[in-house]
Amino acid sequence: MREALAQAAFQLFLERGFERTTVDDIVARAGVGRRSFFRYFPSKEDVVFPDHERCLAEMTEFLAAVDDGDPVGAVCDAARIVLRMYAANPEFSVQRYRLTREVPGLRTYELSVVRRYEQTLAGHLRGRFGAGGDGELRAEVIAASVVAAHNNGLRLWLRSGGAGDPEAAVDRALAMVREVWGRPAGPAPAAASDGAGVGLAAVASADGEVIVMVAQKGAPMWRVVQQIEDAVGKN
Amino acid sequence: MREALAQAAFQLFLERGFERTTVDDIVARAGVGRRSFFRYFPSKEDVVFPDHERCLAEMTEFLAAVDDGDPVGAVCDAARIVLRMYAANPEFSVQRYRLTREVPGLRTYELSVVRRYEQTLAGHLRGRFGAGGDGELRAEVIAASVVAAHNNGLRLWLRSGGAGDPEAAVDRALAMVREVWGRPAGPAPAAASDGAGVGLAAVASADGEVIVMVAQKGAPMWRVVQQIEDAVGKN
Repeated sequence: MREALAQAAFQLFLERGFERTTVDDIVARAGVGRRSFFRYFPSKEDVVFPDHERCLAEMTEFLAAVDDGDPVGAVCDAARIVLRMYAANPEFSVQRYRLTREVPGLRTYELSVVRRYEQTLAGHLRGRFGAGGDGELRAEVIAASVVAAHNNGLRLWLRSGGAGDPEAAVDRALAMVREVWGRPAGPAPAAASDGAGVGLAAVASADGEVIVMVAQKGAPMWRVVQQIEDAVGKN
Repeated sequence: MREALAQAAFQLFLERGFERTTVDDIVARAGVGRRSFFRYFPSKEDVVFPDHERCLAEMTEFLAAVDDGDPVGAVCDAARIVLRMYAANPEFSVQRYRLTREVPGLRTYELSVVRRYEQTLAGHLRGRFGAGGDGELRAEVIAASVVAAHNNGLRLWLRSGGAGDPEAAVDRALAMVREVWGRPAGPAPAAASDGAGVGLAAVASADGEVIVMVAQKGAPMWRVVQQIEDAVGKN
């Protein structure tokens, strides 16, 4: 029933335009009563995004259960839940993308949905980073970065008509965010070689004026930055 | 006239609530006709944010004239134009913040305004980074970071009731974004001491396996990261 209503609505939006389609038109096409429509969808806008509530719930559940060790990695993985929802139905996703470009009311609605994803991710990071210091600021900026990167990759795929695998573009985009922000939680040893075998050593000089660092080529950039920040910035 | 309408509207929103106030109520309170209202404001929502169009225009003008050398710094400065608009009228800004928290329609409207600022900043960065490679991705992620950081600082000030100087919190937030993303444009010398006297030297070893870097304490993190990326990541 829910699926049938969403399909009928979408056919009509494409045939007549979103503004000129009424809920009455939709229920007539689907062959059900008005009340059935409102049992499933609070408004005509909601029928365009029928899976976001389920997706938000899945994201919340995922984050509640995820391992604590790598909060930035966790919110990147949580963002991929949204991607999979789009990728599960390429034709519908591309049609919706085009429709949303044309109808200001739908763009605004989409912004409010995206904002809820962002707040869900930020909430998780806040919980991991703690309220003290810059925890809240970092949580919000990283969540915004993850959402922007995810949406950049997703949009590339939607613009291409939904051809091929959308994961590659999103993975590349999220990798950039992780490179910049993705330090696993927990204190890292400053001025010591990296225990995880990444091959870094940061050593503070005795007079506190210079830092000498040795890094293996190919070492992950976030690990290098973490070590240097510990040595240069925080001492 | 415009100001008088905005003030009348706001008084009524606070007295009766946003939903229960009509445009007729507003024009009656301001002592003008309905047509005057719609000459200045397309809708009831717009009257809550009377300065955003001007602010967006100012931001666009600023970015069109700004020096090319430091695009991330430029978009941070552009974001400060929004802050100054809020700071120019603390009482109004705080009242609007509280009202916006309570009225879903206003929150959605605000999201669409914030999105336009973000797109303006991203457009500037895209122009500077170029379309090739990761230019578009970086532009969007950095714009989202700047907006999130700015809004974090602004929100701290609004939550505190608009007391004191809002610039400190926003400056601190934007400084974090600049530290992570803010590399001035143009190629930097890899594996060489920094010509600008920042006090860095990155040297690739002969066998290509390790990097030795010497940094003065207190050196800007972005400069350190830039040098290391040039040496570790890109070779």
